[in-house]
Amino acid sequence: MASTGVFSDILYGDVFKYYADGEWKKSSSGQSVAIINPTTRKPQYKVQACTKEEVNKAMERAKFAQKSWARTPLWKRGELLHKAAAILKEHKSPIGECLVKEIAKPAKDAFTEVVRSGDLVSYCAEEGVRILGDGKLLVSDSFPGNDRSKYCLTSKIPLGVVLAIPPYNYPVNLAVSKIAPALIAGNSLVLKPPTQGAVSCLHMVHCFHLAGFPKGLISCITGKGSQIGDFLTTHPDVDCISFTGGDTGIAIAKKAGMIPLQMELGGKDACIILEDADLNLVAENIIKGGFSYSGQRCTAVKVIFAMESIADALVEKVNARVAKLTVGPPEKNCDITPVVSEASANFIEGLIMDAKDKGAKFCQEHKREGNLIWPLLLDHVTPDMRIAREEPFGPVVPVIRIKSIEEGIHHCNSSKYGLQGCVFTKDINKAMLISDAMETGTVQINSAPARGPDHFPFQGFKDSGIGSQGITNSINMMTKTKSTVINLPSPSYSMG
Amino acid sequence: MASTGVFSDILYGDVFKYYADGEWKKSSSGQSVAIINPTTRKPQYKVQACTKEEVNKAMERAKFAQKSWARTPLWKRGELLHKAAAILKEHKSPIGECLVKEIAKPAKDAFTEVVRSGDLVSYCAEEGVRILGDGKLLVSDSFPGNDRSKYCLTSKIPLGVVLAIPPYNYPVNLAVSKIAPALIAGNSLVLKPPTQGAVSCLHMVHCFHLAGFPKGLISCITGKGSQIGDFLTTHPDVDCISFTGGDTGIAIAKKAGMIPLQMELGGKDACIILEDADLNLVAENIIKGGFSYSGQRCTAVKVIFAMESIADALVEKVNARVAKLTVGPPEKNCDITPVVSEASANFIEGLIMDAKDKGAKFCQEHKREGNLIWPLLLDHVTPDMRIAREEPFGPVVPVIRIKSIEEGIHHCNSSKYGLQGCVFTKDINKAMLISDAMETGTVQINSAPARGPDHFPFQGFKDSGIGSQGITNSINMMTKTKSTVINLPSPSYSMG
Amino acid sequence: MASTGVFSDILYGDVFKYYADGEWKKSSSGQSVAIINPTTRKPQYKVQACTKEEVNKAMERAKFAQKSWARTPLWKRGELLHKAAAILKEHKSPIGECLVKEIAKPAKDAFTEVVRSGDLVSYCAEEGVRILGDGKLLVSDSFPGNDRSKYCLTSKIPLGVVLAIPPYNYPVNLAVSKIAPALIAGNSLVLKPPTQGAVSCLHMVHCFHLAGFPKGLISCITGKGSQIGDFLTTHPDVDCISFTGGDTGIAIAKKAGMIPLQMELGGKDACIILEDADLNLVAENIIKGGFSYSGQRCTAVKVIFAMESIADALVEKVNARVAKLTVGPPEKNCDITPVVSEASANFIEGLIMDAKDKGAKFCQEHKREGNLIWPLLLDHVTPDMRIAREEPFGPVVPVIRIKSIEEGIHHCNSSKYGLQGCVFTKDINKAMLISDAMETGTVQINSAPARGPDHFPFQGFKDSGIGSQGITNSINMMTKTKSTVINLPSPSYSMG
Amino acid sequence: MASTGVFSDILYGDVFKYYADGEWKKSSSGQSVAIINPTTRKPQYKVQACTKEEVNKAMERAKFAQKSWARTPLWKRGELLHKAAAILKEHKSPIGECLVKEIAKPAKDAFTEVVRSGDLVSYCAEEGVRILGDGKLLVSDSFPGNDRSKYCLTSKIPLGVVLAIPPYNYPVNLAVSKIAPALIAGNSLVLKPPTQGAVSCLHMVHCFHLAGFPKGLISCITGKGSQIGDFLTTHPDVDCISFTGGDTGIAIAKKAGMIPLQMELGGKDACIILEDADLNLVAENIIKGGFSYSGQRCTAVKVIFAMESIADALVEKVNARVAKLTVGPPEKNCDITPVVSEASANFIEGLIMDAKDKGAKFCQEHKREGNLIWPLLLDHVTPDMRIAREEPFGPVVPVIRIKSIEEGIHHCNSSKYGLQGCVFTKDINKAMLISDAMETGTVQINSAPARGPDHFPFQGFKDSGIGSQGITNSINMMTKTKSTVINLPSPSYSMG
Repeated sequence: MASTGVFSDILYGDVFKYYADGEWKKSSSGQSVAIINPTTRKPQYKVQACTKEEVNKAMERAKFAQKSWARTPLWKRGELLHKAAAILKEHKSPIGECLVKEIAKPAKDAFTEVVRSGDLVSYCAEEGVRILGDGKLLVSDSFPGNDRSKYCLTSKIPLGVVLAIPPYNYPVNLAVSKIAPALIAGNSLVLKPPTQGAVSCLHMVHCFHLAGFPKGLISCITGKGSQIGDFLTTHPDVDCISFTGGDTGIAIAKKAGMIPLQMELGGKDACIILEDADLNLVAENIIKGGFSYSGQRCTAVKVIFAMESIADALVEKVNARVAKLTVGPPEKNCDITPVVSEASANFIEGLIMDAKDKGAKFCQEHKREGNLIWPLLLDHVTPDMRIAREEPFGPVVPVIRIKSIEEGIHHCNSSKYGLQGCVFTKDINKAMLISDAMETGTVQINSAPARGPDHFPFQGFKDSGIGSQGITNSINMMTKTKSTVINLPSPSYSMG
Repeated sequence: MASTGVFSDILYGDVFKYYADGEWKKSSSGQSVAIINPTTRKPQYKVQACTKEEVNKAMERAKFAQKSWARTPLWKRGELLHKAAAILKEHKSPIGECLVKEIAKPAKDAFTEVVRSGDLVSYCAEEGVRILGDGKLLVSDSFPGNDRSKYCLTSKIPLGVVLAIPPYNYPVNLAVSKIAPALIAGNSLVLKPPTQGAVSCLHMVHCFHLAGFPKGLISCITGKGSQIGDFLTTHPDVDCISFTGGDTGIAIAKKAGMIPLQMELGGKDACIILEDADLNLVAENIIKGGFSYSGQRCTAVKVIFAMESIADALVEKVNARVAKLTVGPPEKNCDITPVVSEASANFIEGLIMDAKDKGAKFCQEHKREGNLIWPLLLDHVTPDMRIAREEPFGPVVPVIRIKSIEEGIHHCNSSKYGLQGCVFTKDINKAMLISDAMETGTVQINSAPARGPDHFPFQGFKDSGIGSQGITNSINMMTKTKSTVINLPSPSYSMG
Repeated sequence: MASTGVFSDILYGDVFKYYADGEWKKSSSGQSVAIINPTTRKPQYKVQACTKEEVNKAMERAKFAQKSWARTPLWKRGELLHKAAAILKEHKSPIGECLVKEIAKPAKDAFTEVVRSGDLVSYCAEEGVRILGDGKLLVSDSFPGNDRSKYCLTSKIPLGVVLAIPPYNYPVNLAVSKIAPALIAGNSLVLKPPTQGAVSCLHMVHCFHLAGFPKGLISCITGKGSQIGDFLTTHPDVDCISFTGGDTGIAIAKKAGMIPLQMELGGKDACIILEDADLNLVAENIIKGGFSYSGQRCTAVKVIFAMESIADALVEKVNARVAKLTVGPPEKNCDITPVVSEASANFIEGLIMDAKDKGAKFCQEHKREGNLIWPLLLDHVTPDMRIAREEPFGPVVPVIRIKSIEEGIHHCNSSKYGLQGCVFTKDINKAMLISDAMETGTVQINSAPARGPDHFPFQGFKDSGIGSQGITNSINMMTKTKSTVINLPSPSYSMG
Repeated sequence: MASTGVFSDILYGDVFKYYADGEWKKSSSGQSVAIINPTTRKPQYKVQACTKEEVNKAMERAKFAQKSWARTPLWKRGELLHKAAAILKEHKSPIGECLVKEIAKPAKDAFTEVVRSGDLVSYCAEEGVRILGDGKLLVSDSFPGNDRSKYCLTSKIPLGVVLAIPPYNYPVNLAVSKIAPALIAGNSLVLKPPTQGAVSCLHMVHCFHLAGFPKGLISCITGKGSQIGDFLTTHPDVDCISFTGGDTGIAIAKKAGMIPLQMELGGKDACIILEDADLNLVAENIIKGGFSYSGQRCTAVKVIFAMESIADALVEKVNARVAKLTVGPPEKNCDITPVVSEASANFIEGLIMDAKDKGAKFCQEHKREGNLIWPLLLDHVTPDMRIAREEPFGPVVPVIRIKSIEEGIHHCNSSKYGLQGCVFTKDINKAMLISDAMETGTVQINSAPARGPDHFPFQGFKDSGIGSQGITNSINMMTKTKSTVINLPSPSYSMG
C-alpha cells in the first residue's frame, strides 16, 4: 500500500514530505498542493509546496554532494543503481497504486511502468559504466604538419547538477529515465515531479533513498510550477535540464542559461498507410498506438493518413476494435480511463466539436462523463480542422484520406512537430524511401510509434524537442568532454 | 593582392560586397561599416551594412538550398570542400594581407592561419564523410523482455541552417572551423564575420564561391552587430549557432531558441608550475603562450601560478626572453603588434594600472603607443588585483606565487572560466593528478594551452562555453540523430 | 603504352624486372616465367623467376624499412598514398592495357579497375589516419573492486611485414586493397602477384615507386608458386598474410604460423528469387552478376534458386538478355571474353558436360573456341549435378527451381562456401528474415552479390575465408593492439 | 567441500565425471587420469580419460546446441550468465579448495580467483549484450562514384563452436575468461581443462550447469593431451580456439585450420628501473610481481633491468622483503608454495644451476624440498645465462644491471617474447618514450605487469601470442561480421 510499510516515513499527517539532503522533510511554507484523482475528481493526495529557499538549499547540497559522487568508482555507482532498481521492482504495487489514483493509469499498465523503470535503471547502470569508463586517446600526427608528440586523453565527465522535470503521463518511468543516466554519469539530481504523479515520484525516490545514495545527491522538490517553476529552470546552479512535457519546454529553453538541454515536448505522430499494408496489423496498431492510456502518450498515433482505396476497409477494421474497448475506472483495468484533468477533457472536447462543425464523420458517438471520454475515430478529417494539426492527448484519432504517398509525406512534414511517424507497407523500397522522407526523429516501419525499447535513440525534431534520449544518448548528454594532453619533448611512436 | 585578380568581383567602389544567393551584392541600405586598421588607427576597408530584410532573404535561401544539399552524396560534398581548401591555400597571400591590415596579425602568422585553415577544411571533409556515413544498427533483444523483432537504423543527419559567428582574432580559421563541419554535415551556412576581420572573411568566402558550391548554401552577411546581431541570433530559421567570442555569447545563449549551441567564450588559462619543472621549457611556453599575437588568443596563458621556490628563477628566464621580443607593425613580422582597437588597449591599460596601484612588481616598464602595448610581465600579483581574474587579451602576463599545489588548483578552479589550463612538472603522478583536479575543458601537461591540432577536442567549462569543438566534435554537434525502426512480424536472428 | 614512358625502367630485354629495395632488378636465377595471353593463347609477357635468396633479402629489407615507416607521422603516410593514387589514375591506360592482354579483361572494365583502385588507395589513406590515430583510454574503476588509479591507453599499431597475394581476376584492385591498408597502418609489404596479372601488378607497383615511398618498404616478387609459394607463406619474417584466391588458401592457413590471416577464397553465391520479385530487375542482375567478366568473379552469381511459379518467366527474360551479350576479344570490349586459361576452360566444360549427362536443360547451345566459352544458362539443374555445388568461374549459370523459401535457404546453407548470397523480393519482412537465415558473409537484398563499395565490410564464412575485408576492416586487421597503463599512487577522478 | 553437496553429482566412485550434453558422464574408456597434489606429491584426484568418440559427440552436440542458442535474445543469454556468476561466487569455498589441492595455490588467492571469476562472468554478460546488439549502418555514398542507394547493416554474429584450453595456473579464471565471452556471443563451448586444475574446472562447470544453460551448449572433456589434444585442436567442427599456456600454442597455431585463434603463451616480462624510481614501490612490485604464486604467472616479473647506480639499493630492499616471505603449504596461505610439478621444479633448478655456473650472485641460498623452492633473487645476471632469456615459472628473479635506458630497451626487445613489460620512473617523458619503445603487448608504468582489471586489453606480441584478450576484445574475437545490404531502386537521403 502507498505510504505504508517502508514508505510510512514519507508522509506527515495527510501531506507527503519532500526529499532533500537525504531526509524527508516538511516545507517551511506550511502550504500544500492538492492532487486531484482524475476518476473521482476529488483530492486524493497532498504534497508540500516548497519555497525558493528550500530550492536553494537543495541546489547547494546537490552541488556539494556531486563533487564526491564524481569521485566514486564507476562500479560502485552502478552497484547502488542496481540496488535501487531491485527495490523499485519489489515495490511495484504501492507505487503502481499511486499511479492509478493520481493519473488514472490502468492498474496493469501502472505496475508495468514500475517494473520497466527498474529494468531501465539497471541497464543504465551498466551502460554508464561503459560510457564513462571508455575514453579516447588521440595523437597529434593525424593532422598535417604535426609529429606524434602530443597524446590527448579524453574522457566523459559529469556536468554537475541535473534538473529533471518529467510529465504526468509516465511520472515514474520518465523520471528514472532522467535520474539513472544523471547519477551513473556522476551528476547529482534535483527532481521536480509533475503535480499529477508527484506522489508516485516520491515513492520512487524513496526506493533510491533506501538503496543508500549519499545525502544531498538526489532531491525531490514538490510545489506549484507557478511559484517555483521559473526559479528552478533558471537557477544558476543547474548545469543541465532534462524536461519531458508540453510546449512550456520551448519557453524553458528560451530562458535557460548556457547549459545542455534535453527536451521532449509534444508530437503529432502520423501514420501513413499504403495500399499494400496488412490492414489487420494496422488496425491493431492504431488501437494500441492511438487509444492506449486514452491517447495520453507523446508517441500516440495522432493522425492517420490512409490511401483512399483502403481507407474504408481500414476504418471498418478499426471501428470493430474500438467497439471492444472497455471504458471506465483505472482500478478495473479498463482500456479507456478518465483523462488527467477537467481542463484536458474540455480541450479534447473542443477539438471534437470543431471537427464536428467542419464536417468530420464520427465513427462513434461522442460521449463524455466527467473526465472520461469515450474512444472516438473521426473519419474524413480535413486539414482545416484543428484535430488535423493539434495534439489532443485524448482518445480521439482523426483519419485523413490521401490520394498519393507524396500527399501523406507532405501532411506529415508540414506539422510543427517532428517526434515520430510510422508507415505501413509491405514494400521494402517504399518503406525505406518514405522513412527517409518523413521529417521526424524516428520512423517506425509497420508498427505504431513507440519510445522503447529504452536503449533505442528517441528524439523529436522541430517543436518536438532537442537532443536525443534513449539510455545511451541520455547518459552521453549528461556528460561533457574533458581532455588532458601529454606533450612530449620529442616525437614518440608506439612500437610492437 | 587583396580585392584584385579573382577577388576583384567582391569589391564595389571602395566598399566590399556581401555574399548571398551565390552572388556578391551591394546592400540596399546604402550604408557601410568602416574597418579601422589597428596599426594606423585609420579606416582601412569598408563593408556593407546589411539590412534585416537581406538577412531574411539569406535565411530563406539557406533553408531552401539546404534541402537539396542534404541529398548530395557525401563524397561529392567532400570533393567540393577539398576544392575550396586548395583554392584557399593558393590565395594565402591576399587573404593574409587582409589579416595584417584588419587585425594587425604578424604577416607570417597571417599566412599560416590561411594554410592551416585549408588543412582544416580538407581534414573536415574526410572526417565528415565518415561521421555522416557511419550509422548504427541496434536490435531490440538487448533490452529485457524483448525478442529480436525490431531493427533500429540510426544516422546522423543535418540540422538545417547553421549561423556561424567567429571572432576577430582568427577570423578566417575560426570561420572555416564552423563552415566546413556545417557543410560536410549537409547544412547550409550563414556567416556573420566580426567587423575587424570581415574583409578577410569575405575573401575566404570567395574561395568557397569559386569552388562551386550551390547557390544560397553559403552566405556572408556584414553589418553592425547592434543592428542585426540579435536579429540573426534569434532568427526562427536558424537551427544551430556556432559562436566564438566574448561574454556576449552568454547573452546569445540565454535568448536563443531550442536549438543546439556551440559556444567558445573567454578564458583565463592558468599555468601551474611545480618545483621540478624544466624552467627553460616553461619560459618558452610562457612567451609563446602568453605573448604571441600580443596575447589576443582565447587560449593564451593568462595567469601563472609558480611555486615560490622557483618563481624568481622562472621570472628571470621569462624576462630574458621578453627582452628579445620585437615590438612594432605586423607588416614587419614583429612579435608584439598593436592590439585590435583603442578600446581594447584602454582596457588592458586599466588592468595594468590597477595592478600597479595594488602593488604588483613590474618586470618591464609599461609602455604604450596608440594601440601598441609593450610586453609586460607582472610579478607578485595577488588575487585581489583585476589582472588575477580578468582576461586582458593583451601582452600582459601576471605571476602569482603559490606555496602549494593545492593553492594553485584552488586559484585555477575559483575562476568563472574553465577553458584550458596547463601544468609544468616532470612528475608523472603529479601531472595526472593535477590534470584531473583542474576544472577546465583541457589541461596541457608541459605545454602552453592550445586549440590545435584541430582534430583534438576543444571545450570550455563554466562561462567559457558549451559544447565541444575540434573537427570531429563540431561535425557531430552540427548533426542530429534520426532513426528508422524495421518492425518484423516475428523474431529474427542473424545466422552465420 | 605498357612498359614505355615512365614504365620503361621496369623492363629489361623482354623480361619484366621484379621490385625490391626501392629498385627494379633482374633475378639472379636467370630464369623467367611466361605469361600466356588468354585470347591468343600465346606468350605475351615474361617476368623474373625470383629465387628464395631474393625472397629472403626482400623480407629482410621489409623488416628493416618497417621500423622507420612506423615512426612516420600518419599524415605523411597518407600524403604518399594520395600521391600514389593520383599517379595510378593518371596511368590507367598502360596498366589497363596489361589487364587486357594478361587476363582478357574487357578494355573498359580494365580501365575502371585502375581508377577504382586509385579511389580505394585515397579512401584508405584517410581511413587509416583515423583508425591509427584514434585509440582508447580505459580506466580501472569500471571493474568491480577497483578504484580509478590505472589509466590504460590503447592504440592500434602495425603488425610488421605483410605478405599480399592477390588473384588473377582483379590483380590491380585486389593488390592495392591489401597494399594500401598495410602501408597506412605502418606495415611494410611484400607482394606476390599472380602469374596472370603479374605485369599489371608490376606497373601498379611502379606508381607507388614513383610516389616516393622509402626503399624496401614495398617489394614485388614474381616467380613460380611451386618454387617460392610455400617459402613465402611460411617465411618467419611474415607477420600477416592477406590472400585472395582459390582453395589453396586453406592449405596456406593450415601451414601458416601464429600470425593474422585474411583469406578470401571461393564462393558459390546463391540468388534466391521469390514470387513477388521484379523479374526485370532480377534478369538484369543475373546478367551483370553471372556473366560480367565471363563469370570470373568471387562474387559472381553462381547458382539461382527460383520459385517454381516464376521460373519460366525469369528464364525467358534472362535468355533474352543472354542473346544480346557480345562474345569475343577483350580489346573489342566484348561482354564475354576468353577465360583465363585452357585448364580453366576445360574445367568449365567438364561441369557443363556433367550437367548435360544428368539432364539439365540447355537454354543456349554450348559453344567453345579456345578459351572462349559462349554464355550459357542451364535450367532444371538438380543438386546432384556438379554445377549445383562447384564454382565454374566461367560464363555458365545454373537455375534450380524451388518449391519453398525454406528449400532455397537449405540449398544455400548446405554449400561448403559462405561468401555472399542475394534475395530478390519486394517484401520487407521476407527480405529481412531470409537475409538473417542465409549463412553467408553478406546478403544482398534486391541486387546481385558485389564486393563494393570498397568501404563496406566484405567477408566469407566457412571455406570462403577468414577475417573481414573492406577498407576499414582490412586496416584494422593489419594492426595489433598495444596498451600502456599509467599506474597512479592514489585514485584520481577527472573533475570538471 | 569439493564434490559434496550440490557437487556430489560430479563424482563417480573416486573418479570425477566429464560433462557433455547437459549431463555428468563416465567415459567409455574405463580409464582415468590421476592428478598429483604438488604439495604432497601424491595423487589427489582422478578424472575421466575421454575418448575421441566422446569428443566427436560433444562437438556434434555443441554444433547443434549453438544454432538455437544463437537465436536466444541477448538479455536472456546475459541473465543466465549472471545466474552462473552468482552460483560460482556462492561456491567459492569448495572450488577454492580444489585449487589448493590441485595446483598448490595459497588458499586466500584460490578464493579470490573464484570471486574474481564471477565478477568477470557478470561484466562479460553486460559487455556482450552491447557488442552483439550494436551493429553498424553504412551508406554507399561515402565512396566516390556512389549515390546513396545501398544501406549496409552489419552485425557481429557468433562463430559457432569455441574450443577453450586454459592453463593450470588460473584454471578457473582463465577458463571463464573464455567461456563467458563465447557464450554471451552466442557460441557453444567445449572446455579442455589442464590436468592440474581439471577438478576445479569441473566444479566451475557445474555452476554453469546449475544455472540452467541448454543441453550440449557447454561441455568439459578431460583426458590426456597426448591422446586427445591434437584431435581436439584440429577437429573440423571447431570454429575458434582460445588457448592460454606454453609454447605448445605455437604448434597448435601451425596445425589449426582456417579459424580465428586467440593464443596467450609465455612471457619474459621485463622490469626496467630508472634512477629516479621510487625504490620502495619497485621493491614491493618485484615481490608481488615476481614471487606471488611462486612466480607461476604469465605476467610475472621475469627479469629486472636496473640502472647500475640504484641497483645495490634496490637489491637490498628486495632482499629485505624476500626475507619476510613465508614458505610452505598452500593450506597455510604461505607466500611461496610448491611449484606445480616435479618436472617444473627440476627445470627451475636447472636455470638456477646454470646461473650459478656462470657466476650470478645469489642473494639467498638456493633451497628446495620436493616441489617447494625457496624464493631467490639472482643479482649480476648476464645475458648469456639461461635465466636471462628463459621463463622459469618459479620463484626466481634475475637482476641485470644496465648502464643506459637504451640497453634496457634493447634487452627487452631482443626477447622472443612480447607479453608485458614495466618501467619504473617518476619522469613522465621517459615513462612515455620507454613505453612506446618496448615491443610488448602492454607496458605498465610504475607497476608490475598484470592481466587485470579484466576489461583492459591483454595481448602478447611475437611468441607470446596472437589476438587481444580482455573482456571486450575476447567477445569481439569470438564473433564474425555479417552484413545485409538493402539495395534501393533510387537514391534516398534521410531528411530531418
